[in-house]
Amino acid sequence: MKIQTLAAAAATLAGFAGNAFAQSTVTLFGIVDAGVSQIKNGSESRKLQSVDGLSSSRLGFRGIEDLGGGLSAGFHLEGALVPDTGNPSGYNFQRRSTVSLMHKSVGELRLGRDYVPTFWNLSAFSPFGTNGVGASGLLFYGFGGSSSTAPTIVRSNNSIGYFLPRDLGGVYGQAMVAAAEGAATGKYVGARVGFATGPFDAAVAASEVTNNAAGDKFKSFNAGTSYNFGFLKLMALYSTSKQTTTEQVTWLLGVTAPVGSGEIRAVYMDADRKNSGNDGTLMALGYVHNLSKRTALYGQAGRIKNEGGATFSYGGPTQPAGRPSTAIEAGIRHSF
Amino acid sequence: MKIQTLAAAAATLAGFAGNAFAQSTVTLFGIVDAGVSQIKNGSESRKLQSVDGLSSSRLGFRGIEDLGGGLSAGFHLEGALVPDTGNPSGYNFQRRSTVSLMHKSVGELRLGRDYVPTFWNLSAFSPFGTNGVGASGLLFYGFGGSSSTAPTIVRSNNSIGYFLPRDLGGVYGQAMVAAAEGAATGKYVGARVGFATGPFDAAVAASEVTNNAAGDKFKSFNAGTSYNFGFLKLMALYSTSKQTTTEQVTWLLGVTAPVGSGEIRAVYMDADRKNSGNDGTLMALGYVHNLSKRTALYGQAGRIKNEGGATFSYGGPTQPAGRPSTAIEAGIRHSF
Amino acid sequence: MKIQTLAAAAATLAGFAGNAFAQSTVTLFGIVDAGVSQIKNGSESRKLQSVDGLSSSRLGFRGIEDLGGGLSAGFHLEGALVPDTGNPSGYNFQRRSTVSLMHKSVGELRLGRDYVPTFWNLSAFSPFGTNGVGASGLLFYGFGGSSSTAPTIVRSNNSIGYFLPRDLGGVYGQAMVAAAEGAATGKYVGARVGFATGPFDAAVAASEVTNNAAGDKFKSFNAGTSYNFGFLKLMALYSTSKQTTTEQVTWLLGVTAPVGSGEIRAVYMDADRKNSGNDGTLMALGYVHNLSKRTALYGQAGRIKNEGGATFSYGGPTQPAGRPSTAIEAGIRHSF
Repeated sequence: MKIQTLAAAAATLAGFAGNAFAQSTVTLFGIVDAGVSQIKNGSESRKLQSVDGLSSSRLGFRGIEDLGGGLSAGFHLEGALVPDTGNPSGYNFQRRSTVSLMHKSVGELRLGRDYVPTFWNLSAFSPFGTNGVGASGLLFYGFGGSSSTAPTIVRSNNSIGYFLPRDLGGVYGQAMVAAAEGAATGKYVGARVGFATGPFDAAVAASEVTNNAAGDKFKSFNAGTSYNFGFLKLMALYSTSKQTTTEQVTWLLGVTAPVGSGEIRAVYMDADRKNSGNDGTLMALGYVHNLSKRTALYGQAGRIKNEGGATFSYGGPTQPAGRPSTAIEAGIRHSF
Repeated sequence: MKIQTLAAAAATLAGFAGNAFAQSTVTLFGIVDAGVSQIKNGSESRKLQSVDGLSSSRLGFRGIEDLGGGLSAGFHLEGALVPDTGNPSGYNFQRRSTVSLMHKSVGELRLGRDYVPTFWNLSAFSPFGTNGVGASGLLFYGFGGSSSTAPTIVRSNNSIGYFLPRDLGGVYGQAMVAAAEGAATGKYVGARVGFATGPFDAAVAASEVTNNAAGDKFKSFNAGTSYNFGFLKLMALYSTSKQTTTEQVTWLLGVTAPVGSGEIRAVYMDADRKNSGNDGTLMALGYVHNLSKRTALYGQAGRIKNEGGATFSYGGPTQPAGRPSTAIEAGIRHSF
Repeated sequence: MKIQTLAAAAATLAGFAGNAFAQSTVTLFGIVDAGVSQIKNGSESRKLQSVDGLSSSRLGFRGIEDLGGGLSAGFHLEGALVPDTGNPSGYNFQRRSTVSLMHKSVGELRLGRDYVPTFWNLSAFSPFGTNGVGASGLLFYGFGGSSSTAPTIVRSNNSIGYFLPRDLGGVYGQAMVAAAEGAATGKYVGARVGFATGPFDAAVAASEVTNNAAGDKFKSFNAGTSYNFGFLKLMALYSTSKQTTTEQVTWLLGVTAPVGSGEIRAVYMDADRKNSGNDGTLMALGYVHNLSKRTALYGQAGRIKNEGGATFSYGGPTQPAGRPSTAIEAGIRHSF
């Protein structure tokens, strides 16, 4: 729902002549994505109402105000929806909560809780993005399936971000610093730079963040690329995560292919926990049937293979170490 | 606030010609209902700011997208408002959080957190609905006033619902299954079917749900009917709830009568806890004065009589077993 | 975003002819205000992402329905935004959650969670309002920096408020009572009355509220005035807070001055905790640069001086008693 308003113009202050014809937009937007799934971890199986199989369910409010002279200001408030339970712990704006000052040729300054630069390659160069049975995060976020990762894998509190302006001949990029505010973890610094032209896209990103009381840093690096042949889009993604002596190298190869008004997606991922046998691989295949630009049906299946003490998992029943996790899922994704 | 948008049309994907003229609506809606009440339980009395005396306070977002060929998709997100305290534990979407696929002649498939089929008769065939001093839930929800009821008396997480299409000559109906997702409680199956024609309406519903670690099921059945004579509408509702050896039979007789732009409401309810003397009755009388379709003033009074160890109550001070609970209430209900 | 709707007209009930041409407005509104600050308490310094330096971040929904004959009904739902963290404990409506019945010449009856009458002078006669390094609340809310204040310094649950109608020749006023609902604290009664004409404004307010298990009352009184010379606006505010033997007298003198499209603000505050050396003073200076009516940049600095055991503080690191607290802050405020 996009609503054109002339609020700024109607309420123009004396002395802001430049603003008199400014046009502003406030948008209420969202996605509800729910389905059914069956997950089998080792020998235990469970039927679930799954959510977010295709896109992360959300409700948000955003807007931009044209300040004239190439300058604009904007806000973005976005919170997760949990359609299977109705957000019992409260709707919030932890997906994104920012205010921005933007200039056409200087770039954007953004303050608040936001995605970290190192997140974006994990989404952009993954056929399933970070959703469903082929989500890159299933292997890329953790260390061998454990939770010993940083609080800033996806987003960071207290961040100051800078984004390059558009129209730099295909070059895009962003940098971020975030304050720990006296806490032992969460002092983040990271950046991403990429180049996109025609069917080609590639980007690299790196970050480090304080991540324990001893002040040790969690360091991550990732690089991704895609090439769109029209009938087929190929993707590759590589990532390293490291904290003191723990290190993981993860990569994927993927493909998406349009079929009528739908799309086939396939991915293979491999996570190698260094100096440990706690490795994992993931294979997933899915089909998305678009009923419209806003509404889609989907079906997908995936299998994670764990080695050693690895516990990469689709969730559901407790994941036994070294045993496979499989999932099949079907659902509806509706956006507004 | 209903906002007509042509978002779908404007954003039509190549290949979705059928969607080119689709019209979509996103609606922001809500109710704020607050007042004052005095509750006396046994010999203790308390003055309160009451809420939801006429309608449950809420804020929601819903929308429908026409997909062509009789097919449409929709979402519904609705959360409770608590105007006396401002929702201190966080606004959420636990009233309803669903995504739907609907076909004019096939019916509706609905996924997410939703009302259970067995709830609707308790609302539809009760003069006060489930609000205020004559709310059906005061006697119908529990066992003798205790809280030993299922988590799915009103709504269920993880549900898949099916609704019959409209235009079946007055027949309406729905069915629901919900997953326990590995928990001991909450595996629900239920259905409701009804028939409405002219001034007559009647429906029956039944459900069972796993409700303790031993796997015992809470089983409920209810049936209701109403007849609208124009100057008077009569209602009757009957319900049984059962888990292992605990059983309760509850019924009500009620009437609503239009008076100018207002309405008088009266109800008598009786709850009989089987093989126990923990029974209760409720009598309530109220008047609603409509200032407009959206805004109403109301005043109402009710008395609950408890027998044996029953603790049916209007809330407020601790309810002593076997003692009466009385309430008087006046308030404003404003919807948008 | 203000949206004119004719919903009431379109949905007019038979019998509500008076409503047929009623026009209603529902407004979605908000502010996102974030920046950076450095706070030094005693010898410890901390860098922070600050929020609400100029205005309190918020998201809200409000509306008014014209009922004809000078009567109208309305609602106001408003919750805090926390842009640095995205509201991790859940977005709610604790800033304000009310329903109102209003008559042009009789005044307004308002029910729900709302600001108390005694709050408004602390905001209206303070150059920084209750935000940023010169916020009146930094010295006016507490007792010597301690938290031994009432739950109703700013707002109250369970309130019934009455507001005088406009157009009383410059006189304005309001009164409020709130129920404790069986709790030991929170039974509030208070009122405010003021007079504004041309460049002059002045108001007084007083309240008392039950504030401990013994039933002792927290009593507050405040008075403020301002005079706008055009090139300069002078403000003065005086307040007393008392509970049993603890008493604090606090006052401020302040000034705001327009400079081009911006404004300079300066304030001096003094808090005197009676029969104790736990006193404090605050000095702050700031500049607001308006990019438009909706968007502003700001920079400000302040210093709190604590005496005796006083711990008045800008937050950040633990405040040592009797030591100064200083803050510098810069940020962006965007409203919609």
